[in-house]
Amino acid sequence: MNMVQIIEKKKLGMALSSEEIDFFVKGAADGSIPDYQLAALLMAIRLNGMNREETKLLTLAMTHSGDVVDLSAIDGIPVDKHSTGGVGDTTTLVLAPLVAACGVPVAKMSGRGLGHTGGTLDKLESIEGFSVELTEETFLKQVQTIGCAVIGQTGNLAPADKTLYALRDVTSTVDSLPLISSSIVSKKLASGAKAIVLDVKTGAGALMKTTEESIELAQTMVRIGCDAGRNMVALVTDMGEPLGSHVGNALEVKEAIDVLSGRVTGPLLTVALELGARMLVLGGAAADVPQGKQMMENALHSGAGLAKLREMIIAQGGDPACCDDLSALPQAKVVCPAPALCSGYIERMDTVGLGNAAQAMGAGRKTKSDVIDPAVGFVLHHRIGDRVEAGEPLATIHAKDDASAQEAIAAIQGCIHIVPHETAPCKLIHAFVDSEQVQRL
Amino acid sequence: MNMVQIIEKKKLGMALSSEEIDFFVKGAADGSIPDYQLAALLMAIRLNGMNREETKLLTLAMTHSGDVVDLSAIDGIPVDKHSTGGVGDTTTLVLAPLVAACGVPVAKMSGRGLGHTGGTLDKLESIEGFSVELTEETFLKQVQTIGCAVIGQTGNLAPADKTLYALRDVTSTVDSLPLISSSIVSKKLASGAKAIVLDVKTGAGALMKTTEESIELAQTMVRIGCDAGRNMVALVTDMGEPLGSHVGNALEVKEAIDVLSGRVTGPLLTVALELGARMLVLGGAAADVPQGKQMMENALHSGAGLAKLREMIIAQGGDPACCDDLSALPQAKVVCPAPALCSGYIERMDTVGLGNAAQAMGAGRKTKSDVIDPAVGFVLHHRIGDRVEAGEPLATIHAKDDASAQEAIAAIQGCIHIVPHETAPCKLIHAFVDSEQVQRL
Repeated sequence: MNMVQIIEKKKLGMALSSEEIDFFVKGAADGSIPDYQLAALLMAIRLNGMNREETKLLTLAMTHSGDVVDLSAIDGIPVDKHSTGGVGDTTTLVLAPLVAACGVPVAKMSGRGLGHTGGTLDKLESIEGFSVELTEETFLKQVQTIGCAVIGQTGNLAPADKTLYALRDVTSTVDSLPLISSSIVSKKLASGAKAIVLDVKTGAGALMKTTEESIELAQTMVRIGCDAGRNMVALVTDMGEPLGSHVGNALEVKEAIDVLSGRVTGPLLTVALELGARMLVLGGAAADVPQGKQMMENALHSGAGLAKLREMIIAQGGDPACCDDLSALPQAKVVCPAPALCSGYIERMDTVGLGNAAQAMGAGRKTKSDVIDPAVGFVLHHRIGDRVEAGEPLATIHAKDDASAQEAIAAIQGCIHIVPHETAPCKLIHAFVDSEQVQRL
Repeated sequence: MNMVQIIEKKKLGMALSSEEIDFFVKGAADGSIPDYQLAALLMAIRLNGMNREETKLLTLAMTHSGDVVDLSAIDGIPVDKHSTGGVGDTTTLVLAPLVAACGVPVAKMSGRGLGHTGGTLDKLESIEGFSVELTEETFLKQVQTIGCAVIGQTGNLAPADKTLYALRDVTSTVDSLPLISSSIVSKKLASGAKAIVLDVKTGAGALMKTTEESIELAQTMVRIGCDAGRNMVALVTDMGEPLGSHVGNALEVKEAIDVLSGRVTGPLLTVALELGARMLVLGGAAADVPQGKQMMENALHSGAGLAKLREMIIAQGGDPACCDDLSALPQAKVVCPAPALCSGYIERMDTVGLGNAAQAMGAGRKTKSDVIDPAVGFVLHHRIGDRVEAGEPLATIHAKDDASAQEAIAAIQGCIHIVPHETAPCKLIHAFVDSEQVQRL
């Protein structure tokens, strides 16, 4: 097998064979194919595409390029959830305890934030003592005992994806449906869950800007997952503005606790219930989505969800005090408002810009080695469609110092677009996709 | 300026600006842009193309990425000739002495053979003592004194092309009109000639397989050259079969001497006269092509061409004995016929296969470090359209040993396709291209 011939075939728009795909994925994982040949192939794939069969073969080859986690020691059907990445998106912290409280095991490997999107691991680490680095054995035991665990990736999962992902970032080949799908799904397949609910974000703050593109991505991923023998479905949800009102690590933990305590409702809870209900269906605990939603709501109102979060925090070495007293979470030195510069209606938000503003404050990383400040971020007081008056706070800033606060105020004012005429709020849930159909919601 | 944004633009099919092209060419020359980003850009250029302006800008940026030779010390208009590469193509050795004998200076920097195509430098080095490594000063002085010199590249010409050419070879991005054109023309512009005649090969043994593609390549290159202020024209000539009958280094020198002695005519002489006549026109020595051809023929028949070759060999340290006695050239140990396996008419030749057969015998290089055997190769006895009888020699093999001879016999028998019905000979000269028009011949 010869890499130049493989590049040649894709350059001419031909479909690659199973052997050819295995060859270059293996070479990406073990370093035997030079980066420049992989880069040329990635660009040829970006421009000439891959058919359904090729995309499936690519995903499976990437899945098997490293370790595959074995969750068979867990009773029941372990269900996973994966979001394509957003801002103020704390659904995992809300739904993992609720789903576990309903009897479906959640064995979740999460990621860290990079770029404008936050990461579940970083949020959990803002809880004093919380450890996301468990051995696989401890991880499985915890899921078996209390029903849920959220940890960082163990072992060497999908190493081919690591190589290709890093190259895509620097060769302008991120925006390719087969490359995005295979990257996400290979990691999910390697982390072992038998059933997976995908949360495909759509809009200004997401990778896919239009609903149609997002539905296509969801369909592609669901097909691959089902072809690979996993039960996979997807919701397409909105990222035209941040999902929750809180952006920043400790702030997002606070919002999750507020939601699990029943004090706060809104879009974050709505999306968590929708995703969670589907996890309960896939996990065999609910017969249908309405029943799943009812079970989730019962677990919320009974306090079983919050109790499960407390159990998980204790099991992973964290201080559960924050579940009862939010002031136990890290607090920022400077707290101040970001006032609206004019009166009117919020028409749209630059969601990537808001994520970048939080990153610049210290809530996220520009490069992998950056250290995060758990306390910083901001709380938005309005959503698209809201009326605001000049001088009224658009957000409350939580910053490390005055200079950072002033920068954040200016950034937030620039990211929230106010117009004189009335505007419409965003639709929250756009579609449900399973292996049979696309259901527009 | 950011390389990812440049790749992004070309990926989206947009035209790159002068600044963007300068940026990546400079980065290719000085190594500041990693190969994987250049490879992704090359594939995006291969698939999305470049317009006329971009191709010109790319060529000029590559020309100025290193040294540019100054030929202004030479009286008259120095004229260069460049072939896109063929098999049995010894035109330089025939036309350089003839053109110089007609009073137009030929200051030629040639290349070595790589892959299936031969290289003028390797051929010249089969002459005892001949040196192709002159300083620029000695080179200019020789042209000034005797009217011609053929040497290897001096200085650091078009280093960006070196990087990009090496990458294209291993990323399946060779077959791109803007990349081929800019690579060839940048080297020609950097080597300083004010007037250049291009010999664009077409057919089975050439980069461009069809006449239309070859004309398009010729037009692209001629436009760039003229836009850059050089007088450039092109002939599109046939490479459906080897041009001369001799393939191999010393064998091709022998054929050139045979032609310059007036003993041999045929396609090699025809093409050399056509190209040379155009060089005389561009060099201001002839008013038009018929006059140029007449001058070339006079120089041939008077022996002035052979005398000029002798002068050049002496000037470059070589033994001119071969001009009078061909046995002074290196001789192969084994000389034997390659018989036709059946009777019929030659329909076509696998010209690349014939070039590779010569390379395998030791006449060419697989990698840059291979050492060449000047004596080996073969002499073809027939052209496409000829009638042959079973057992009659298709070629005479000149090999280093019996094993190599047997291999070459089998290869040549496989490369020459004999059919029962009559076949047509190849057309030799397909088109003439200048900045004004395409003249189909």
